[in-house]
Parts: sequence; structure tokens; C-alpha cells
Amino acid sequence: MSDADVAAEVSLDRIQRRLDAIWEIGRTDDGGVTRLAYSDEETAAIEYVLGELDERFTVRTDSIGNVFADTDPAADRAVYLGSHLDSVFNGGRLDGALGVVMALEAIEVALAVGEPPVSPTLAVLRAEESTRFGQWAIGSRGALGQLTVEDFSATDQSSVPLWQAMQDQNLQPRDLDRPTIDLDRIACFLETHIEQGRVLDEQDEHVGVVTSIRAPVRYRVTVEGDSDHSGATPMGMRRDAIAGAAEMITTVERVGDTAAGSGDLVATVGDITADGGAINKVCGRVTFPIDVRSTDRSHRDEVEATLLDRLEAVADRRDLDLDLSLVDRSDPVELDPSTTGTLASVADDLAVPYRRLPSGGGHDAMNFQHRGIPTGMLFVPSVDGVSHNPNEATPDDAIRDATTVLTHALLGDPTAGESPIAEPESND
Amino acid sequence: MSDADVAAEVSLDRIQRRLDAIWEIGRTDDGGVTRLAYSDEETAAIEYVLGELDERFTVRTDSIGNVFADTDPAADRAVYLGSHLDSVFNGGRLDGALGVVMALEAIEVALAVGEPPVSPTLAVLRAEESTRFGQWAIGSRGALGQLTVEDFSATDQSSVPLWQAMQDQNLQPRDLDRPTIDLDRIACFLETHIEQGRVLDEQDEHVGVVTSIRAPVRYRVTVEGDSDHSGATPMGMRRDAIAGAAEMITTVERVGDTAAGSGDLVATVGDITADGGAINKVCGRVTFPIDVRSTDRSHRDEVEATLLDRLEAVADRRDLDLDLSLVDRSDPVELDPSTTGTLASVADDLAVPYRRLPSGGGHDAMNFQHRGIPTGMLFVPSVDGVSHNPNEATPDDAIRDATTVLTHALLGDPTAGESPIAEPESND
Repeated sequence: MSDADVAAEVSLDRIQRRLDAIWEIGRTDDGGVTRLAYSDEETAAIEYVLGELDERFTVRTDSIGNVFADTDPAADRAVYLGSHLDSVFNGGRLDGALGVVMALEAIEVALAVGEPPVSPTLAVLRAEESTRFGQWAIGSRGALGQLTVEDFSATDQSSVPLWQAMQDQNLQPRDLDRPTIDLDRIACFLETHIEQGRVLDEQDEHVGVVTSIRAPVRYRVTVEGDSDHSGATPMGMRRDAIAGAAEMITTVERVGDTAAGSGDLVATVGDITADGGAINKVCGRVTFPIDVRSTDRSHRDEVEATLLDRLEAVADRRDLDLDLSLVDRSDPVELDPSTTGTLASVADDLAVPYRRLPSGGGHDAMNFQHRGIPTGMLFVPSVDGVSHNPNEATPDDAIRDATTVLTHALLGDPTAGESPIAEPESND
Repeated sequence: MSDADVAAEVSLDRIQRRLDAIWEIGRTDDGGVTRLAYSDEETAAIEYVLGELDERFTVRTDSIGNVFADTDPAADRAVYLGSHLDSVFNGGRLDGALGVVMALEAIEVALAVGEPPVSPTLAVLRAEESTRFGQWAIGSRGALGQLTVEDFSATDQSSVPLWQAMQDQNLQPRDLDRPTIDLDRIACFLETHIEQGRVLDEQDEHVGVVTSIRAPVRYRVTVEGDSDHSGATPMGMRRDAIAGAAEMITTVERVGDTAAGSGDLVATVGDITADGGAINKVCGRVTFPIDVRSTDRSHRDEVEATLLDRLEAVADRRDLDLDLSLVDRSDPVELDPSTTGTLASVADDLAVPYRRLPSGGGHDAMNFQHRGIPTGMLFVPSVDGVSHNPNEATPDDAIRDATTVLTHALLGDPTAGESPIAEPESND
């Protein structure tokens, strides 16, 4: 097989037709999509994808509702690739769906132009978004035997528990500790996803080779002072919760900026609520969240300690009461260097504009790597960084290039650390 | 008459009994009161006060619903004193009501122990709070001929227009430009009110003699940046509206602190709203109000100009869009120095712990002074500075002392600039 074969076989029309068909399932009035975890819409989208599979695929649905479509069920080893089909409320057309459709396209083209040395298996993982149940990546965690009975009692906005929603989709998980897939059979896991940030878009790069996944430590901060009349309370007599919170937020940003200069780090206050706030009051109570992420746990730990110290100091100096509640602490993960190396080498050989970058959000891929399975991820650009929004968009060129890279990776051994493209053909 | 006569006649029991009776009209489950402008409850409270007036009073209700109860209708000149009986939603027992009940007590005691040289008139002004119609001091502005047809179209939370609410209380104002009271007859206007701040309470002072009324200039600020994924957007690629707003809020505080050192000034951000904020987002849009008050218009103008410059500079440096909408600009007023002097002299002579201080909030008194009528105000302490809240409280000693000061002022000429107490008696 040659470059030209793969590039000629990759069909943007087929990819867009499939994305459009999935988009119709749960499409909202303003062009978004609501296809929640374990909803009828998610099931319908899975049914649609199964309907696109020809006789070369052997389909298995596990007790969690994940679908694995093998191209060689008898093979000892397989490359698993795919993503999810559920969405947030009024999310975009691409998040999750693009990863499933591109994986299918790559498998079909790889089978059409050559013979993958390790057989590919399409993976459609359920319920990646935390929107409905406040639990994320239920499908991949379930497939890896990582769910507990507690997880199943999580409820949605209508108080429907997860176990009930799964029963409604004819799913009855029992042996929770046991992975639903043979972990030894998985040579590697590959996922493609929109970046959800603006790095690739601003740099005009078509592909991102994900090196690692940032994981967050998160706090909910409550600042309490005194609620007073704004006109009647002299400046020196105030315990102003909004002014205190404002100083803390600028501190979070400054510490984040500095830490981003000496390692991978982002620090964010993305929301703020003033209790009983009014134009004519000094506000007595403010809450806001802090989200600190890094691919480097020890760097993040240092920043976390610095931040907590600085916030306490602000509160002390202002005589404010401060409550810092830890709400999340996850471990970052470095994706498999060999698999990542293969993806980067292929992009190099194809002269696709790409960059290595960390992932800012969690993905199913993270759970596979945490479980010790060699894992690689490709990003495609999010125009203007938009995600979880009806305006999600990715340029066609980038979708074609990323699908081509993924296909070439399948035509070699993705975990080999090198491109299977021996010698690029000239263009003439 | 002597000190002792007045002090002996002032009845805390009668004051508290009347306050309790008014409290019952619109009392809420948690001990507050909801007695809105032009509500049946406000009318009922006025009826209660009228029921407390004996044959010495001649009552007139104007077309705005204000009540003026003369003790000598034939007199050319009268001292008008009183306050309002409406409240905010779930407000406190004292705001407004205390000023009416103390005025009535002072008039009754003054008539009992002596003969006021200028006859007193009890004034109950309607609709001081802006809670219901977004318009404040409707009663005093109407009494002074300052309402326009536009004011009457303001609507409440149920879309009832002011003119309709007034009709429902059998009120039909017509000749809007003409004051409902003979301005030449008003020798002075006196109002007592809770401080609504914590200055007197923290200093253990029983009486505040208000020297001037701070007036606000107010802006609504909108900061716009880009909404992005918090994990996927590097620090250097953000246009973070929350971080920008936080820097602006600390700027408002710092400018206010500095300006408070060189003149009368308070500057406050008392609320903040993050549009579409979330723990995992960089926030794209924040709004907050700014409230700057001073008794000195030119000092306030300078601070306003400085603030706007600094906020623009923060927005420019951060590449954020900034909208500054002026929502209010009122003129501060200095209360009549002679009237203020009388109140202070009486307090001095009685050895009542008092201080001169500015009022942070607007009051009906402000409108009288703006109209050129000599005006004086007394404050009593708000425990912990609490106001517009069921927990409003004022110590009994302070209520007794302030009523005594007010009564002595009536027993002289309040505008004389000096205490009518010739020579305080010794205590033995």
C-alpha cells in the first residue's frame, strides 16, 4: 500500500454523511445535540453505527452497553480504536461521534488497501459525559472492571438512578470487578477527539498527537465576611467577601501564570456566586471553584500547596473566614511513548502539520492507559476552541489528515514507535 | 421644663408597644416585615398611627398618601418631623417605623412638659423604599412637587403600575408640579432613622447627628472575553472575564481606600454574576455593579474619573471588551448647619454619647434639604450594622437618648443652632 492508496480511499463524504446521520439523533433546534448517557438517543446512535458495519465485523455488546466490533475475532491481539456517542445537553455534532466515525473509516480503509498486522476492533464506549449522572466515562470504567455498586446509585436530573437507566436499555451489569474485555488481547487503544481548546486552530495544525492527559485537583472556596450597607460602612470597617474573593482569584491566575512558565499547568476560576449580592451592599459571602490541571503530578502538588497558602494569607490579612473544600483530585497520565511515537512518525512522514500536546480534558483513553494498556490519542482542531456547544467545528482538511494518519498507524504496529510508511512516494 | 421632666416623660414602653403593633402589620414568619410601598399593609400601618393620635392633632392626607398631623393648624410655621412606614421585602422592625414612632413620642412629650415655640407637625411619608417600584422616596418627592408622569408608570414585580397601586389606595395625584405642603410653612424637617451601618454601634455611641448625605454614582460593568475549556486552554491564550473582573474589583477597592484617606468616600462592588460559569470553563462574560458615594461631589467626580481610567486600562491590557453603563448619579447634600448644630448642642448638654457623621444611604430628609428646607437627621445605632433584615436592632438606651434629644430640640427653635437647654440641672 502507498500513501496515495490511503489518501484516495479516505472518504470525507462518507465521514460527513455518517456524522450527519448521528447528528439527527437528538438534534436540537439550534443545531446542537442532546444525546445523554444511557438515553434512547445514545442507543439509537449505536444502532446506527452497527447498521453501517458490513460482514467483515463481528459485533459484541458487553453488560455495560459498550460495543466491540472485531475484524478478526479469532486473533490473539487487536488494536482497539473508537470513542463515545453520548453528548452533554445541547452539545456539538463532533464531540465523541467524530472519534467513532473516524475510527470506522480508518478500519475500513486499512482493510481495503492492505492487511493490518494487528487486527483492528472498533470500540464504541458508552456514557463518557458526566452531564447526566455526574459520573464520567462509565463505559470505559465498566469495560475495565472499575465500577462499584455505589456508582450505579448516581441519579440524573429526574432522580432516575444509573442502574435504572441501564435496565431501561436492557443492560444488567453483575460481575463488576471483571473487565468485560480481555485486557491481554488489547495491543493498544487509540482514540481521536476534537481538541476542545484553541491551540491547534491558532497554529493552523491539522493533528495533535496527545502526549499526556492533564488531570485536575479542584476546590470549592467559600469566603465569608460581613454583609453591610455599601453607603453606610466606611472602607476600613468592612469585611468584604467580594473584594477578598477578587484578590484570591487574581492570586490563582498569577500563581498559574508563573507555574505555566516552569512546567505544564493551567489554573482557573471559572465561576463565582455572590450570596445576597446587591448594588447597595457590601457582600458577606462568595463561593467560587478552583480547577488546577497539569500533566505533572508533582508540579501540580507544589502549585496546589502554594495556592492554598496564598489564599489563607489573603483571608487572614482581610479577617475573612475561608473554607477550602477539596472536590476532586485525579492523577494525570502519560500516554504510551511508543504508540505516541508511531502517530507522530506517521504524521512526519506524511508531512501533515501536527504538534505534540497534552490533553486538557479527560477521555476514555485516559482510563485505558491508567490500566496499563498502551494508549495513543489524536486531536483534531476545534475552530475557536469551541466544545460542548452547537458551534463545534473542525476543518475538513484536518479530518482527512487525521484519518489518514490513523489508517497508516493501523497498517503498521501502532505500538512499534515508528511509522509503517517505509518511504513516502513522490507526488509526481 | 427640665431635663428630668423630658427624661421622665419619654416612655420606652409606649415606643416599643407602638413598634410592636406596626410590626404585626406585614410581619413575616422569621420575624421580619414585608410592608411594601402603596400596599394595603402600608395603609394599615398609617391607619394604626392615626388611631394613636389624640384630639391635639389635626390630620391631613395629601394626594400622594402622605399624612401630616398638625398640632397647631393655624400656625404660620411648623417643625415637620417623621419618617416612613413602608419596608423592603422581609425587612426589619425599625427601618422607617422607628422614625415615625420616635417623632410622635417627641411631639407628645414636648406638648406634655412645655410649649414648643414652633408648633410640631408629624409627617408620615409614603413609599420611601425602592423595593416595589424601583423608585425611591415617592412620598417626599410627591409632597415637594417633584414627581413626573413617567414616575407613575413604573411597575412592580407583578407588573402593576404605580398609578394603579395608588388608585387601589384611593389616591389620585393630579397637579404634579405643585407641592402638597406649604413649603414656606416648614420651619425645618427632622428625621430619625437607624444608621444602617456599624459606626455608632462599634463606638458605643447612642446618637448620630447627620451632617450630610452621601450620594452615589453607579455603574453596571460588563466584561467580555472568550469562553474556553479550562483544561485545554493554556494560560497565555485566555481572555478570562472572571480574572479581568477580579482585577477590576481589587482596583475599585484600592482606589476607594486611597480616596477615603483624603476625603469622604466609599467605593463598593456588592454583586457579581458569571454568565455560563462552570468549574471546567474559562468564563467569557461577567457583570458587576460599582457604587461610589461621597458627601463631596467634586471628590467623588475625581474618584469616578480615576476609576474609569483604571478599569479601561485593565481591560486594554487583558484584551477584554469592557462596557461601563452609568445607572445613577445623584448629588450629595449637606444638611442645614444650624439645625445640625442644635441637635449636637442638645446632645452635648445632655451628655449623650454622640458623633457627627454622614449618612451613607438616601432618606426623605435629603429631598427636603435639596428643596432648600432646613433639615436635620438623627441616627440611632444599628446593632452589627444590620439593616433591611429581620435582625435589625437598636439598644433601648439609644432610643431613649435620641428621643430625649429630639424632644429638647422641639422645645427650642431647632433651627437656632443652639441648645434650648439653658443650664443642665445637677443629678442630685
